[in-house]
Amino acid sequence: MSIRSTNVRVSLPAVCFVWQIAMIVLFGVFIRYNEEADTHWQEFRRENNISSDIENDFYFRYPSFQDVHVMIFVGFGFLMTFLKRYSFGAVGFNFLVAAFGIQWALLMQGWFHTLDPATGKILIGVENLINADFCVAGCLIAYGALLGKVSPVQLLVLTLFGVTLFAVEEYIILDLLHARDAGGSMVIHAFGGYYGLAISWVLYRPNLNLSKRLNGSVYHSDVFAMIGTLFLWMFWPSFNSAITDHGDGQHRAAINTYLALASSVLTAVGISSVTQKKGKLDMVHIQNATLAGGVAMGTAAEFMITPYGSLIVGFCCGMISTFGYVFVTPLLEKYLKLQDTCGVHNLHAVPGMLGGFIGAIVAASATEEVYSREGLINTFDFEGDFADRTVGTQGGFQAAACCVAIAFGIVGGGCVGLVLKIPIWGDPADDNCYDDEAYWEVRECFLNSPPVGAVAL
Amino acid sequence: MSIRSTNVRVSLPAVCFVWQIAMIVLFGVFIRYNEEADTHWQEFRRENNISSDIENDFYFRYPSFQDVHVMIFVGFGFLMTFLKRYSFGAVGFNFLVAAFGIQWALLMQGWFHTLDPATGKILIGVENLINADFCVAGCLIAYGALLGKVSPVQLLVLTLFGVTLFAVEEYIILDLLHARDAGGSMVIHAFGGYYGLAISWVLYRPNLNLSKRLNGSVYHSDVFAMIGTLFLWMFWPSFNSAITDHGDGQHRAAINTYLALASSVLTAVGISSVTQKKGKLDMVHIQNATLAGGVAMGTAAEFMITPYGSLIVGFCCGMISTFGYVFVTPLLEKYLKLQDTCGVHNLHAVPGMLGGFIGAIVAASATEEVYSREGLINTFDFEGDFADRTVGTQGGFQAAACCVAIAFGIVGGGCVGLVLKIPIWGDPADDNCYDDEAYWEVRECFLNSPPVGAVAL
Amino acid sequence: MSIRSTNVRVSLPAVCFVWQIAMIVLFGVFIRYNEEADTHWQEFRRENNISSDIENDFYFRYPSFQDVHVMIFVGFGFLMTFLKRYSFGAVGFNFLVAAFGIQWALLMQGWFHTLDPATGKILIGVENLINADFCVAGCLIAYGALLGKVSPVQLLVLTLFGVTLFAVEEYIILDLLHARDAGGSMVIHAFGGYYGLAISWVLYRPNLNLSKRLNGSVYHSDVFAMIGTLFLWMFWPSFNSAITDHGDGQHRAAINTYLALASSVLTAVGISSVTQKKGKLDMVHIQNATLAGGVAMGTAAEFMITPYGSLIVGFCCGMISTFGYVFVTPLLEKYLKLQDTCGVHNLHAVPGMLGGFIGAIVAASATEEVYSREGLINTFDFEGDFADRTVGTQGGFQAAACCVAIAFGIVGGGCVGLVLKIPIWGDPADDNCYDDEAYWEVRECFLNSPPVGAVAL
Repeated sequence: MSIRSTNVRVSLPAVCFVWQIAMIVLFGVFIRYNEEADTHWQEFRRENNISSDIENDFYFRYPSFQDVHVMIFVGFGFLMTFLKRYSFGAVGFNFLVAAFGIQWALLMQGWFHTLDPATGKILIGVENLINADFCVAGCLIAYGALLGKVSPVQLLVLTLFGVTLFAVEEYIILDLLHARDAGGSMVIHAFGGYYGLAISWVLYRPNLNLSKRLNGSVYHSDVFAMIGTLFLWMFWPSFNSAITDHGDGQHRAAINTYLALASSVLTAVGISSVTQKKGKLDMVHIQNATLAGGVAMGTAAEFMITPYGSLIVGFCCGMISTFGYVFVTPLLEKYLKLQDTCGVHNLHAVPGMLGGFIGAIVAASATEEVYSREGLINTFDFEGDFADRTVGTQGGFQAAACCVAIAFGIVGGGCVGLVLKIPIWGDPADDNCYDDEAYWEVRECFLNSPPVGAVAL
Repeated sequence: MSIRSTNVRVSLPAVCFVWQIAMIVLFGVFIRYNEEADTHWQEFRRENNISSDIENDFYFRYPSFQDVHVMIFVGFGFLMTFLKRYSFGAVGFNFLVAAFGIQWALLMQGWFHTLDPATGKILIGVENLINADFCVAGCLIAYGALLGKVSPVQLLVLTLFGVTLFAVEEYIILDLLHARDAGGSMVIHAFGGYYGLAISWVLYRPNLNLSKRLNGSVYHSDVFAMIGTLFLWMFWPSFNSAITDHGDGQHRAAINTYLALASSVLTAVGISSVTQKKGKLDMVHIQNATLAGGVAMGTAAEFMITPYGSLIVGFCCGMISTFGYVFVTPLLEKYLKLQDTCGVHNLHAVPGMLGGFIGAIVAASATEEVYSREGLINTFDFEGDFADRTVGTQGGFQAAACCVAIAFGIVGGGCVGLVLKIPIWGDPADDNCYDDEAYWEVRECFLNSPPVGAVAL
Repeated sequence: MSIRSTNVRVSLPAVCFVWQIAMIVLFGVFIRYNEEADTHWQEFRRENNISSDIENDFYFRYPSFQDVHVMIFVGFGFLMTFLKRYSFGAVGFNFLVAAFGIQWALLMQGWFHTLDPATGKILIGVENLINADFCVAGCLIAYGALLGKVSPVQLLVLTLFGVTLFAVEEYIILDLLHARDAGGSMVIHAFGGYYGLAISWVLYRPNLNLSKRLNGSVYHSDVFAMIGTLFLWMFWPSFNSAITDHGDGQHRAAINTYLALASSVLTAVGISSVTQKKGKLDMVHIQNATLAGGVAMGTAAEFMITPYGSLIVGFCCGMISTFGYVFVTPLLEKYLKLQDTCGVHNLHAVPGMLGGFIGAIVAASATEEVYSREGLINTFDFEGDFADRTVGTQGGFQAAACCVAIAFGIVGGGCVGLVLKIPIWGDPADDNCYDDEAYWEVRECFLNSPPVGAVAL
C-alpha cells in the first residue's frame, strides 16, 4: 500500500556500527575514570582526609542514579506504549536512542564541563552517568512528539544533534549564565519539548489521518502505559534531587518534588473529569498530566520554595497540563499544523517553561533570613566569579536561561527537522504510521485471537 | 441498564479541588522543612558535631523510601489489576487515593508526632514521607476489599477518614502504649484490613452476582497483577526496615523479612496445589498469599526473632493465608455477608493480627543475654518514662496495641461505611460493578479483537 | 490428548513442605545474624572504632541488593513471559524456584564461606543475601533453557542440585583458585548456562514440534518480556558492583557495566536488522542480546578495563549474542539435539565464558603503573597466602576458573538431567509443552476474546 520504503536494512546497521565505533575511538582518546572510581581512590582519600569509603560520591548518588535510569528506560519507554500497535517501537526505539545517547552525552558534556585541561581527558564518575541520562531525556521527550511517524535512523540522527545541542545549551545556561537547574525544567524539559515540537512541525504530514485507525490505545496498551507513568511519577523526586548538593540539597529537592507531584494528581483528575461528558476520566490525562508537577519543579526543587509552595506549583501545572490535552493539542494540530503524538507540549514544553520562570521567581525572592548567608551561597553557588551576585540578578539570569533553552529547542529543532525531511531515512508513508509492522518482525496475528469456540468476554 | 447514576462530573472535581486547596492552606500554616532538609543544615551539622553530609537521615532512609513508594503506587496498584475489566480503576484510583492520602497523612501524623510546640510547625523530612506512605497503605488495603464496588468519590472520603483514624490509632499504639510496630503489622495491616472489611460489610450488595461475569481475571490481567505482587514481595524488606533504628535495626529487619517472604512462597504454592483438583496452582494464591510472610513480620522484624524464627512465621502465614482464600472467603461471603474483592481478610487482616501477636510474644521473650542490655534499650526504646518497663510488660502492651488496631478498624470502618452508604457518592449499581466503563473513557472495543481473517491461536 | 500425567497434587506440595521444613531445621541449627545485624552492633562499633552507623555494611550494599533482587524476580521472571501461553509458568515458577533457592543458598554458601569455626554458626548479613540471590540466578538461567518443558517439581530438584553445585564451584573458583568474579561471568552465567544446556540435552524431546504452535510469542507477551529485559539491563550495573570493594570498586564496576550494556544495544540492533529480511528488528534479539554486555563484564567490571575497553566488550558480545540467536541456536537444535527455549546459550553460556577469559586477559595485563601498588593489592586481593602472586599468574588462574565453571555446568547438568529423566516428576508430554494449562488454573478463555460485535481493529 505505502509507496515509501521503510526498509532500513542498510541504513540502520550502518548508523549503529559507525556510531558505536566512533564512540569507542573517542572514549579511547578522551574518557577515563575519575579519582573516586579509580584504584588510586585510597591514596586520594588519605590526601584529602576523607575518613571513610562511604563518603565516595557513589554512595551519595548511586540510588538516585538507578531511579533516574529506570525513568529513562522504563518510564519514558512504557509511557509511550499506549498506542495499540506501536508498543515495540515505543519501548524498543526508546531503548536504542537512550543507549546511544548516553555515550555521546558523556563525551559532549565531558568536553564542556569536566575536561581536565592538564591531561585533555574527561574524568567520569556516577554524577556524569546521571547527567548523561538527563541529556538523553531531552531527546526522548522529543521522540514523544514524533512517536509512530519516524524511522529508527531518523531517531538516531535526532539524538546525535539533540545531545549536541543539549550540551551547548546546558553550558550556556549553567556555566555562562550561572543559572541553577538541577532537575532540568529548562535544560531538559523546555528544551526537549520545543525541540520535538519544532521537528514535528517541519515534518508535518497533511495526510496523517490515513493512519488514524492506529492512532489510539486499546485497553491493555493503556495499562502498559501506566507502568511508565508510575515509575516516572514515583522516581521524579530522585530525578530532581540526583545532582543537587549533598545533604540538605538532595533532601529538600526530594521533598518538594514529592509534594508537587501529589498535588498534580488531584488537579489532573479533577480537570479530566469535569471536561469529559458524564465525568468519566481519560487515561491520557492520568498518564501524563499527573507528572506535570515534577516537570515544573525541576528548577525550584532545590530552593526553599516551602512545602506549600510545592503544592501550589503542582496544583497549577496539573490543571494547565490537563487543559492542554483537552483544548490546546487539537488547536495546535488544526491551526499550527503541529502533530504531537504524546502531547509533549502539555507535559514537557509548557510545564518546563513554567518551571523555569517559577525558579526565577523563587530565586529572586530568596532572603538571607530564610536561607542563612551560608545557605544562600551554597544553594546558588555564589562563589568565585559570582560571589557578588544578588538574588535579584540571579532571578534575572534564571529567566534568561529559560529563554535560551526554548530558543535552542525551537531553532535547533527546526534545523534538525530539515535534515530529517531528506527522503533517505526510511520513514513510513502517511498511511503506514503508528504501525510496528514497518520496523519489527511481528509474529502471528498481531493482536490476540480467541481459541475457536471461546466464549466472548 | 443500571438505574443508579455513576456520573461524578460534579462531585469528583469538587472533592479534588476543595481538598487540594485545603491541603495548600494547611501546609502553608503548618508544614516546614526539618533541620536536615533546610538550608541551615550546615550550621546544624557544626552545632551537633556531625562529621559528614552522609550522616543526613536522607542517606539512611531514602533508598528504602523509594522502595516503599514503589510498593504503594505500583505494588498495590498493579496487584489489583487482576480483574478483567477494572485495571484502569485499580491502578488509577489507587494513584488518586494515595496522592491525596499522603498529603493528609503528613498533616495528621505531624500534628500527633512531630509538632514543634515552640513554633506550632510540623517539621518534615524523609522519615515523614515514609510514614505518610505507610499511612496511605492502610487505606489502599481497605480499597482492596471494595475494589470494583465504589466510586472514586467514596474512595476519597474513605481516605480522608481512614488517614484520620490511622493517625489517632498510631498515636495510641506507638506513643501511649509505647508499642513497637516498625513495619506496621498492627498499625497498617490489621487496621487497614478490618477497616476495609467493616466498610464492605456495611455496603453489602445482595445482588452483586448481577456483575458476576466481570468478577474474575483473564490471562493478561493476571500477568499484570504479578507485577504488583513481585514489587510488593521484593521491596517488603525495605518496608519493614524503612523506619527502624539506624544500623543493626534496619539491617536485621531486612534480613528477617526477606526470609519470612521466601518461606511464604513455598507454603502458598504447596497449599494452593493440594487444594485444587489435579494439583493445578491458582494465580490468586500466588499473587497474594506469597506476601503473607511480609505482613506478619511487620512488628517482629526489628526484634531478634532469629532467622529460623522468621522462616517459621512465613511458613505458617503462607499456609493460613492460602487456606483463607480457599475456604474462609467463600464462607465469609455466604454467612457473614462480607464481600471482599481482593481477599484482604486473608492477606492483611489475619496475617496483620497474627503479626501483632507474634511481635508481642517475641518481645515478651526477649532476654538481656540475647540482646545485651544496651540492645534491649535500643530495640524497645526503654528510655524516659519507659526506662523501667520489663520485656514482659512490653509484650502485654504489644498485645493490647494489636487489639486497639483491630478495634479502630472495625468500629471506624463501620461508621465510615454508614457515611458511604448515603446515596450521593455516585457508586455503581449492582449490575454495573467491576466495570471501568462506569468511570473511565474506554476507547474502542474494550478487549482486543483479532484482525479479520486472523488464525485462531 | 497427552498420555503423561502432569498431576503434581501430591509431589509438588510434598516437595515444598519437606524442603521448607528442612530449611527451618537447618537454619535453626546453623544460621544467626552477623555482628552488623545483631543488637550487639553498638558494642561492635565501639570495639572497632567505627564512627557512625552509616558505615554498617547495610548502607554500602542494600540499594544494590534491592536492584539485584528486582533482577532475579522481575527481570528473569518477566524476560521469560514472551511465550504466548506460558507467562504464568515463567513468572510463577521463577518465583518459586528463587524463593526456595535463596534459602538453600544461604546454607550452602554459608558452610563454604562464612562458617564461624568457633561456634559452628553461619553469620549472615546483607552481603549473604546478595550472594544467595546470585546463586539462584544460576538456576534461573538454567530454567531458561528448559522453559515450558519441565514440571515445577523438576525445577525444585534442579534448584536443589544447582545451588549445591554452585556453592562447590564457587568455593573452588573464589577460594582455592583465588580468582575474582564479582559479577559472576564465570560462576553464575557460564555455569548456569551450561548447566541448563546440559540438562536440556539429556532431556531432549524428539517430538517437541507437536507443541510448536505454542512455542512463540504474541504481541502483548513480547511487551511483557520487555519489562524483564529492561529491569535486567538497567540494574546490571548494580549486579556487577553489588559485592565489589567499598569505594572505588563499586563505583568502577557500575561505570564499566553501564558502558558495556549501552554498547551491546547498538550492535544487537545492527545485527538484528541486517540479518532479517527488509531490515526489520526481531524482538528476541532486543530482549536478549542487548544484555550480553552485562554478562560479559561480570568478571572484568571491577578491574581497570577502562571505559573504552568496556565499550569494546559490549560491542563484540552484542554482536556475538545476536549472531547466536540467528544462526547458532537453530544449528544446535538440528545437529546437537539441543532444545534451548530462551537461547541461554547465546545470552549466558557464551558471553559468560567470554567474560571469564576477558577477565583473565585484563588481570594478566594489569600494571602497577595503572593500578598503583595498593590498588593492585586491593583489586586482586593479593594478601595472605596470595601476597606473592603476580598478575600473570592471576590471569592464568582466572582462565582456569572459567574452565572449572564450564566443566561444573556440563558435568553437573548431565548428571542432574539423568535424575530429571526419571518419569516420576510430572513433566508434560511432547504435545503439551509451553502450555500453562498443565500446571495452572486458567480461568475463562485463555486469550482475550472480543465482545460480540466488536469491530476488528
